[in-house]
Amino acid sequence: MPQRSKREEIAAAAVDRFHSHGYNATSVRDITDTAGAPVGSFYNHFATKEDLALEAVRRYAESGNGYLADRSLPPLERLRRHFACIQDENIERGFTRGCMLGNFTAEVVDHNPAIRDAVRHSFASWTKAITAVLTEARDDGSLRPGLEPLATARFLLTAWEGALIESRAYQSPDAFDNFFAMVFDVLLPAPVTD
Amino acid sequence: MPQRSKREEIAAAAVDRFHSHGYNATSVRDITDTAGAPVGSFYNHFATKEDLALEAVRRYAESGNGYLADRSLPPLERLRRHFACIQDENIERGFTRGCMLGNFTAEVVDHNPAIRDAVRHSFASWTKAITAVLTEARDDGSLRPGLEPLATARFLLTAWEGALIESRAYQSPDAFDNFFAMVFDVLLPAPVTD
Repeated sequence: MPQRSKREEIAAAAVDRFHSHGYNATSVRDITDTAGAPVGSFYNHFATKEDLALEAVRRYAESGNGYLADRSLPPLERLRRHFACIQDENIERGFTRGCMLGNFTAEVVDHNPAIRDAVRHSFASWTKAITAVLTEARDDGSLRPGLEPLATARFLLTAWEGALIESRAYQSPDAFDNFFAMVFDVLLPAPVTD
Repeated sequence: MPQRSKREEIAAAAVDRFHSHGYNATSVRDITDTAGAPVGSFYNHFATKEDLALEAVRRYAESGNGYLADRSLPPLERLRRHFACIQDENIERGFTRGCMLGNFTAEVVDHNPAIRDAVRHSFASWTKAITAVLTEARDDGSLRPGLEPLATARFLLTAWEGALIESRAYQSPDAFDNFFAMVFDVLLPAPVTD
């Protein structure tokens, strides 16, 4: 099925280009060039650049929940590894690209309701997955008493999006180190009781 | 001095357009149109769009430290009003625009070292101003023991940048409410001792 395969290549190229260069600085030709496809073939697979961006947001979000569902690990350790995994990807990329959801929010959502809905849906799924982990931690007593799983999950996600911004502006892992220290040493751990 | 006044109008228009539409979606003509200036006059005042963006980042950052230096208020109250002030601006704008420093980071800094330096410098000044307030809070005993002012300031700034992202994606004040509850009710306050 060569048609299907070319669609896949265009969608994968779109995730890569949108993530590295943003929405407005990426043309349909940039994407088809990256995919090694003639620019005219684009419209056999997608109606518009916006249409492809919606697909790219979905693909990007689906690839990002590493470790959260791994029940072989204690919940807070799962959460730590989840963020450490994204951190390592960002260090490997030299502190470039950040989070595509955050980037699209900063650049596009004010002017494009369809992309805003897709981004919001992806943020909501991510929040839900983190909330489930924190609910487990609350139930097994490893979460600091008084922390509400949903509110805490949303706060962690915003702090993480901000850490990605700081790491890019400073080209440095310091924001990640600070995130892990403030979240896992200060905010989350239940006090040890004698 | 009409020359100076036109330069001012172009710079103010640039802050407005870059903040509302981002860097790549803003042309020199968009800015001169907003300023009511002929496009050809632009180059009497700025060498390039990048040159103007550097000026816009400086102007934006200089306008943003409300309440932090107001010594008539207790330090944590000053900090709360600082973020509440930015929150109110964002609610008035219908949860659009976010933070220009965060937006330029998401869209531009990977590809433009001069803009990255300007954004980093502005983030560093903001962090320094918040650190000074938290240092006062530590010294007067209102900050939770064990919290280090610089690490805490950086964490608050990242959580705030993330809250701006979430509020735009959801078109909702919930991210702000969650930020204030998690920061001022959970993270920062020193426990009351009997």
